[in-house]
Amino acid sequence: MSTFQLDALNAMSEVDFVAAIGDVFEKSPWIVESVAQQRPFKRLADLYTALAAVVQTAPMERVLDLIRAHPDLAGKAARTGTLTPDSTAEQISAGLHRLSELEYDAFHRMNDAYKARFNFPFIVCVRRHTKGSILRSFEKRLSHDTGAERGTAIEEILRIAALRLDSRVIAPDKLPLNGRLSTHVLDTYSGRPAEGVAITLLELTSDGVNRIVTTATTNADGRTTTPLIGDRPIPFGQYELQFEIGAYFSKLGVEQAEPAFLDIVPIRFGISDPEGHYHVPLLTSPWSYTTYRGS
Amino acid sequence: MSTFQLDALNAMSEVDFVAAIGDVFEKSPWIVESVAQQRPFKRLADLYTALAAVVQTAPMERVLDLIRAHPDLAGKAARTGTLTPDSTAEQISAGLHRLSELEYDAFHRMNDAYKARFNFPFIVCVRRHTKGSILRSFEKRLSHDTGAERGTAIEEILRIAALRLDSRVIAPDKLPLNGRLSTHVLDTYSGRPAEGVAITLLELTSDGVNRIVTTATTNADGRTTTPLIGDRPIPFGQYELQFEIGAYFSKLGVEQAEPAFLDIVPIRFGISDPEGHYHVPLLTSPWSYTTYRGS
Amino acid sequence: MSTFQLDALNAMSEVDFVAAIGDVFEKSPWIVESVAQQRPFKRLADLYTALAAVVQTAPMERVLDLIRAHPDLAGKAARTGTLTPDSTAEQISAGLHRLSELEYDAFHRMNDAYKARFNFPFIVCVRRHTKGSILRSFEKRLSHDTGAERGTAIEEILRIAALRLDSRVIAPDKLPLNGRLSTHVLDTYSGRPAEGVAITLLELTSDGVNRIVTTATTNADGRTTTPLIGDRPIPFGQYELQFEIGAYFSKLGVEQAEPAFLDIVPIRFGISDPEGHYHVPLLTSPWSYTTYRGS
Amino acid sequence: MSTFQLDALNAMSEVDFVAAIGDVFEKSPWIVESVAQQRPFKRLADLYTALAAVVQTAPMERVLDLIRAHPDLAGKAARTGTLTPDSTAEQISAGLHRLSELEYDAFHRMNDAYKARFNFPFIVCVRRHTKGSILRSFEKRLSHDTGAERGTAIEEILRIAALRLDSRVIAPDKLPLNGRLSTHVLDTYSGRPAEGVAITLLELTSDGVNRIVTTATTNADGRTTTPLIGDRPIPFGQYELQFEIGAYFSKLGVEQAEPAFLDIVPIRFGISDPEGHYHVPLLTSPWSYTTYRGS
Repeated sequence: MSTFQLDALNAMSEVDFVAAIGDVFEKSPWIVESVAQQRPFKRLADLYTALAAVVQTAPMERVLDLIRAHPDLAGKAARTGTLTPDSTAEQISAGLHRLSELEYDAFHRMNDAYKARFNFPFIVCVRRHTKGSILRSFEKRLSHDTGAERGTAIEEILRIAALRLDSRVIAPDKLPLNGRLSTHVLDTYSGRPAEGVAITLLELTSDGVNRIVTTATTNADGRTTTPLIGDRPIPFGQYELQFEIGAYFSKLGVEQAEPAFLDIVPIRFGISDPEGHYHVPLLTSPWSYTTYRGS
Repeated sequence: MSTFQLDALNAMSEVDFVAAIGDVFEKSPWIVESVAQQRPFKRLADLYTALAAVVQTAPMERVLDLIRAHPDLAGKAARTGTLTPDSTAEQISAGLHRLSELEYDAFHRMNDAYKARFNFPFIVCVRRHTKGSILRSFEKRLSHDTGAERGTAIEEILRIAALRLDSRVIAPDKLPLNGRLSTHVLDTYSGRPAEGVAITLLELTSDGVNRIVTTATTNADGRTTTPLIGDRPIPFGQYELQFEIGAYFSKLGVEQAEPAFLDIVPIRFGISDPEGHYHVPLLTSPWSYTTYRGS
Repeated sequence: MSTFQLDALNAMSEVDFVAAIGDVFEKSPWIVESVAQQRPFKRLADLYTALAAVVQTAPMERVLDLIRAHPDLAGKAARTGTLTPDSTAEQISAGLHRLSELEYDAFHRMNDAYKARFNFPFIVCVRRHTKGSILRSFEKRLSHDTGAERGTAIEEILRIAALRLDSRVIAPDKLPLNGRLSTHVLDTYSGRPAEGVAITLLELTSDGVNRIVTTATTNADGRTTTPLIGDRPIPFGQYELQFEIGAYFSKLGVEQAEPAFLDIVPIRFGISDPEGHYHVPLLTSPWSYTTYRGS
Repeated sequence: MSTFQLDALNAMSEVDFVAAIGDVFEKSPWIVESVAQQRPFKRLADLYTALAAVVQTAPMERVLDLIRAHPDLAGKAARTGTLTPDSTAEQISAGLHRLSELEYDAFHRMNDAYKARFNFPFIVCVRRHTKGSILRSFEKRLSHDTGAERGTAIEEILRIAALRLDSRVIAPDKLPLNGRLSTHVLDTYSGRPAEGVAITLLELTSDGVNRIVTTATTNADGRTTTPLIGDRPIPFGQYELQFEIGAYFSKLGVEQAEPAFLDIVPIRFGISDPEGHYHVPLLTSPWSYTTYRGS
């Protein structure tokens, strides 16, 4: 998908403007069309606010049309390759493109149950989720009443639109959509930052097939040069940081037993706030360590 | 295998004495026979010391006979069920009875390489080992010279005999063969021992198929009623303690996010001293924890 | 004061029995007299329970007589040396024998205000208190109503009697009157108990003149051979443990800056439960430490 | 003392230039005079480097004149008010203006012993020192040989000059003379930065009369808005941070005993690198805390 300068969007004809970003709302270009006259927008946040106002003040019928314009999660459209490009990328981000038959069936049953109850499809901003958290969300939302679910559907649609906008439009400002996960390794044996510690961040899945999210090595300040996650929401879920502490102290020349008491130090934690700042440091000697949710 | 009171062993005829415990040295009853005249032994340690002296002062030829009386580890005898009962139980303790074809081949190659080099079989007290540590030991010992390896073989034979003796003879004393692994959970949110925390102890294997060693729940003092391991050596290797901290704080009524920041807390550590005392406590709030090798 | 075997007390004439321990209730031998017929007592706890029952079921007038038999705290009797031996020792334990003129006046004013309000003297089991906590207690209790204060006075009288009994009578059992304060130093640099660490326990006073309660040195297990306090209640108050960590790591040969980052490590804590068990450990490297209320 | 823009110094006549900053070397304006022709200096560091080069390449006689131009520390000149303004302010910074008679005598004896041995006065950059560390330094340097001490005297003179320059000249750059002491309070009970914690930083003196260096309160990020010390060297010595943790948790509504287990948390540490960065955080619940030298 192409990206656009906010200035260029402001200068386009109405038709071109809708052609450029009309699809940030799934198959519903009328929303972008509705704000074309309000241009120019100084900041991306202004454009987003105008779009959100259109959705929030639309008559019920149009809202339901918008909701119903969304595909099933991990549904037939995904299998047959008829999703919009945005939806495809989003469903991939949560791993919905490589479900086992069992998982596919679970999604299928949930989708059907949800639609039978509410008469519209289940919508969730999957970039903030993992497979597991989507299924937990399905279950929880199935027990809500229709009004509440309509509200939730709109919230999720606005989150989806915001993330699409933010990735598509180059502007002086960014929408506040990103979480941050960072770490810091302090060597309490030497009293200084631990440099050169290899770190792996895993996403833990319920089926035990853990996924490597990223790897990094600490710098002279005991930190990673960029946050482990910093440019996107951190999907709800369970994670594990693994620190190669044994190798670090070996390189330092600290005498250790064979095997060392501490080799790989795992720190397992849950993310409940995808836009939150999570700082998860490690204070460690060869024989002891401390971790905490920092800031 | 039957157990015997030390007093009864002291009172037996020489023939019965040898029949009773002659097999604590693999297919070498002459060692037990050599100490029969020294009876009575007041303590098990005295009996062991007498037996060790026989081995340590035996002429080279007899020592080599003793070494060669031992079967291959995970070798043909194990596959065809022709091991002595003691050897069978010992090889099971390290999981040598359920090797994959690849592992079986690795052991086979190692055994052959070792015998080709030293002209006697590789002997190790497997109750102090895991599969992984046996293979690492093989590799390391392959580079030794013959004299050193003969010495190591005798040490290992004496360890095997000591463990067999200790399990077979009921005496006022025990041989100092047991390691101890214990834990303690302290709730730093409430300032008291954490009661009711479910704990799982895993042995980590290089193939990622972790084995549950034991499970336990903390008592009112934050400890387990008996040590996690206390009546045997702790095999060399990597372990992980998993503490169900999220469930503990939920039961206490502490409000937590969904998912909680800390749910299962894993502590991974290596054992390098099978007869050592390892105390691995956890000091934890819902947001922070500390662990260390304690005493 | 003499001590007596419980058996001997059981065997005495009634007159001797009262002569022996009649003074465990201040100037009120009638209480001990009342239980003489119930002898023999198997355990000290039985004797105490019988005595407590006498007090708790006595008619109001006798109770008030008992309360009024007590001297003023830090009052004239103390200054003129006319206290009972027990009262003298007790008032010394809380440092009431060396008050400044200002403190003496404060006690004097409090005593008078209390007696003016309740018509009986302020009674507190001073062995569970420090000067500061007595004054805080005075203030708090001044706002109670007479019934509540009568109840509190009896509770305190029973605590005083229990401590006197426990120190005077040798029996198979002890009354559960003792608090315990212990510590444990763990060297997280070396992964073992810290042996030979000098420790000082101070009681912190509001006037800044801190009092050394005890000193100790850690043994090979990182503990002190006996608890820092173990055979008496721990008076309400503020305390500081000081650990000579710099000297410990120097002796170990750890290179340190001049001055060391950590030299004397102070841990300051409050005691709110004189009969409680307080375990206050220190986990320390030359650059980091952790402490907590343990068990 | 007046401050000058570097640009203005560059533009002055030679006479004015020397009048402006000639006194950054004690009573030795010839050093500044020597670099006047090298103007303009782009950065303060360039000016300093030029001045240092003059001193380092001066003939021995001039160096000795420079050394001897310095007054005794806490000597007669200080008592009679005949020090230069710079020296006065510097000696005040280390508390040398309020010595007891005993301390005055100690300095006096040391000065005399030093001069007797080396034939020039003892010079130390007092802004990097406390009273105690100056006396320890005296003792240590007394055992050096004359060549080494001449070298040390020059180093200290250059440090003094650098600090005087840095405070007197406004330039695009600063000389790297400042240490930094900072802290950070993390609430491990709530899993967030501790806001509103009152902090006191004390300098501990050997006579037990501790001096308050600064006080601060943590902000929403658990930090102080500016470092506790950030715009000057941190004098060698012992310090104590006191954190009012009991009040913090009370305000948060956490139920605590009376008195609380943790009320004032003291952290005592030594500074051995006046230009170093010391980060001394506190991770704390009402029952446990951890501190460390961070970065």
